[in-house]
Amino acid sequence: MTEEQGRKRRAGGRAGNKSRAGSAVIDQMPWRIPVNTDRPTEPLDTDGVHAIHRGAMRVLKEIGIEILNPEALEIFRKAGCIVTGENVRMDEDFVMEMVGHAPETFTITPRNPAREIVIGGRNMVFVNVSSPPNAWDLERGKRTGDFETFKEFLKLTQYFNCIHVAGGYPVEPVDIHPSIRHLDCLFEKLTLTDKVCHAYSLGAERVEDVMEMVRIAGGLSHSEFDARPRMYTNINSVSPLKHDYPMLDGAMRLARRGQPVIVTPFTLAGAMAPVTMAGAVALSIAEGLSAIALLQYINPGCPVAIGTFTSNVDMKSGAPAFGTPEYMRATQMTGQLARFYKLPLRSSGVCAANVPDGQSMWETSNSLWAAVQSRSNLVYHAAGWLEGGLIASPEKFVMDCEVLQMIQRYFEDSVTATTPDDIAFDAIREVGAGGHYFGCQHTQDRYSTAFYAPFVSDWRNYEAWAADGAHWTPERAHRIYKAIMAEFEAPEIDGAALEELTRFVARRKQEGGAPTDF
Amino acid sequence: MTEEQGRKRRAGGRAGNKSRAGSAVIDQMPWRIPVNTDRPTEPLDTDGVHAIHRGAMRVLKEIGIEILNPEALEIFRKAGCIVTGENVRMDEDFVMEMVGHAPETFTITPRNPAREIVIGGRNMVFVNVSSPPNAWDLERGKRTGDFETFKEFLKLTQYFNCIHVAGGYPVEPVDIHPSIRHLDCLFEKLTLTDKVCHAYSLGAERVEDVMEMVRIAGGLSHSEFDARPRMYTNINSVSPLKHDYPMLDGAMRLARRGQPVIVTPFTLAGAMAPVTMAGAVALSIAEGLSAIALLQYINPGCPVAIGTFTSNVDMKSGAPAFGTPEYMRATQMTGQLARFYKLPLRSSGVCAANVPDGQSMWETSNSLWAAVQSRSNLVYHAAGWLEGGLIASPEKFVMDCEVLQMIQRYFEDSVTATTPDDIAFDAIREVGAGGHYFGCQHTQDRYSTAFYAPFVSDWRNYEAWAADGAHWTPERAHRIYKAIMAEFEAPEIDGAALEELTRFVARRKQEGGAPTDF
Repeated sequence: MTEEQGRKRRAGGRAGNKSRAGSAVIDQMPWRIPVNTDRPTEPLDTDGVHAIHRGAMRVLKEIGIEILNPEALEIFRKAGCIVTGENVRMDEDFVMEMVGHAPETFTITPRNPAREIVIGGRNMVFVNVSSPPNAWDLERGKRTGDFETFKEFLKLTQYFNCIHVAGGYPVEPVDIHPSIRHLDCLFEKLTLTDKVCHAYSLGAERVEDVMEMVRIAGGLSHSEFDARPRMYTNINSVSPLKHDYPMLDGAMRLARRGQPVIVTPFTLAGAMAPVTMAGAVALSIAEGLSAIALLQYINPGCPVAIGTFTSNVDMKSGAPAFGTPEYMRATQMTGQLARFYKLPLRSSGVCAANVPDGQSMWETSNSLWAAVQSRSNLVYHAAGWLEGGLIASPEKFVMDCEVLQMIQRYFEDSVTATTPDDIAFDAIREVGAGGHYFGCQHTQDRYSTAFYAPFVSDWRNYEAWAADGAHWTPERAHRIYKAIMAEFEAPEIDGAALEELTRFVARRKQEGGAPTDF
Repeated sequence: MTEEQGRKRRAGGRAGNKSRAGSAVIDQMPWRIPVNTDRPTEPLDTDGVHAIHRGAMRVLKEIGIEILNPEALEIFRKAGCIVTGENVRMDEDFVMEMVGHAPETFTITPRNPAREIVIGGRNMVFVNVSSPPNAWDLERGKRTGDFETFKEFLKLTQYFNCIHVAGGYPVEPVDIHPSIRHLDCLFEKLTLTDKVCHAYSLGAERVEDVMEMVRIAGGLSHSEFDARPRMYTNINSVSPLKHDYPMLDGAMRLARRGQPVIVTPFTLAGAMAPVTMAGAVALSIAEGLSAIALLQYINPGCPVAIGTFTSNVDMKSGAPAFGTPEYMRATQMTGQLARFYKLPLRSSGVCAANVPDGQSMWETSNSLWAAVQSRSNLVYHAAGWLEGGLIASPEKFVMDCEVLQMIQRYFEDSVTATTPDDIAFDAIREVGAGGHYFGCQHTQDRYSTAFYAPFVSDWRNYEAWAADGAHWTPERAHRIYKAIMAEFEAPEIDGAALEELTRFVARRKQEGGAPTDF
């Protein structure tokens, strides 16, 4: 398929594309927002939660946080915080009052309203891998991210129903100049996918351009855009205890327009944070709440979420570790704090492994189960992440989607239902001792939906598997990835919106895009 | 190392062997019994637990279970159950009275008392892979199990501190005649390891021989052996609704001598059990409790545990599936029932994958986390299992031990401690904004024990990993396996006990071992 044909197809909006998309390659589960039915795992008692809370409050009151943004400093000053140079100190009353304004739950509606997501409560949505500078696949090995690969990952993001959000760039297209990268990337994101997308807070122009593009793609007026969340940003603090200029600038721009901001400190215990997990979590909470307090002061009630990215480094090498026991516990602890503050929680699916092997999957499984146990509402990097976030891999993407689908299935009430039909006394009597359940009516009535049906797992015995080529998981995933690329059909988009979007990108490129001196 | 040198070394008991063992190859965590600090995950409410309980009771009362053992039939009859041919029906009062005799917790003391384990409560012990007929490794591929490979797995079992029990044969040594296999196998098990071991309930002679060998290896008198649990057996029902002769025979022999019996039905939903998970669990509970009731009638208070092996089949191919969402929920539900009955719980670490790849690790991770969530006390097949139990793999063994160690670390209170030292306010003040925690005293005081230290995970970046050979996880695990084989030192054993054990085996072999017509 040439690029031109692709555009045409997207513009043409061939009837039925949407419903057929994906059905040819694998038999996947339908789109739905998983609802986490488990009681969260809570390693802290009430005293423990309070100890971390008090630690965070004391950090903000007695040490303060550096705010490298004059506008934000001015706002903090106006709010009565103690501003000394770039250091801002704030007390518990202020922080808690501001945090109290934040909604417990909010929706984000992308250009396709059927892909609306709810953030908060027991809802759990999965985001594609975001921001690796490199890609790796079985065929080509590791290489720098480029635009073609970027588009491949968008197709995977759109294809899999278990991926709810087209988050950051799934790989950095470094062959596109940074001044116009956001224009090309968002154009692809808004045409190759119809899911919720995101603006990097990397300068005013980028943020404003992305908001405008999301508005145009959705065929929305300015007031319609502002009326409810349509996209979001995620900002990171510069741990320890610093918020930089562009992140805060972008966050404030979105907050003013009622668009959600996720604040995710990246506190690696032993490096940018205390070596003790409770200390690393307390620091993370302090950094996160300080930005949330700012945004709630600017626009009380604006949608925000608190993120956690607390892990640890290998103390021998300084290498970051992911999916460790410490990572799991830090995520669970942050979940307890998020519930204490009544804020939605973001965590991640992460690993340190360099290739989609066993290690990658135990680390990713650990982090995804920690996301479940912490009652995370938004799971970043849920599919495709390798090498601590430095690599995006299509095989890993496919493999992770199997795990995500299993989590989605895990939450279905039918699995644990105990009605008389489920207890199946009559079937047990019918089959009796030594019989077989394959043939009985109770089985026949239910067999097609009774169990999770995998798409990349191979459950055949060794001999059948070997006779079919003895393909290990990444090879099978590679085949699926290639098939998806071959058969991908972009979602429909309104012709007028596409035209306006195209014109907008052309004009902004002509104007030189965004400055690159951030 | 020749076989003779091996024997000598074992007999010699070189001072310090025990403490040095293992230190050369990898830096592993010390032996300890993990204590599960998590609140269990409970998908059922009280009504759900009662519904499954009532279903199981109704099965036992109205349908009954086939007992293919005349002695057991006679005992059931004596106990007032309704025996019709081989069918036994029993009512709830009888079952619950008998189950009420079972202890909630018991210990098993192997020949090395330092390796004593506690089954029940919040304790969680891990058992090596048991009973695969085949082995697979990276070098030799899949092949039939043999005695040399059997011994290799025993060395892995002994080597890893996170493996607490040398369960069944980690691979079947089919090159040893079945009549004497148990003699050779137990001799190796009792000399290559000093951990709790197990007798297959495959005929009276085997069970009696193993009990005798465990007694001899421990230097125990007959009354010392009988005084407390020294080993155990695991029996499986023939689902649906059948207990066979040799399993019950072995179970009754152990129960009479106060040795623990684990009863583990193998109920694959859609094949040997209802297609609905609650039905499969109810059937499993009925089968398990019927045998436990028998044993408690024979010797009230004898140590028992209930096992779960409820999973599902792929309804397209009939292939068994493991580590699925259904498997996880069935394990959690059985955990709730086990607590309802106040019985210790056994589950497993399982996968359907044929090689130690990504699929094998997400399936195994799912099942191991289900073991945690269900508060399982004994986790069979916790290391080394592939192909639904048809393959034992040394690479998988090493990889699984990394996950087991992480679970052990996950339970350590220090990870989630919130003392002022853990909150680390002074360190946060000392480092301030933009600083680094590597150098501060708070880090220096704790860095060597602060985090989980892996042995097979590779946390280096891609380039360092690639420069070192780009070894995927199974290759690294293979290297560790080989190094353990090269440096393995057997645990000490008393010279007199070894001599008597050797004589016993020789005599029993001369007598022809055990009949093989079971």
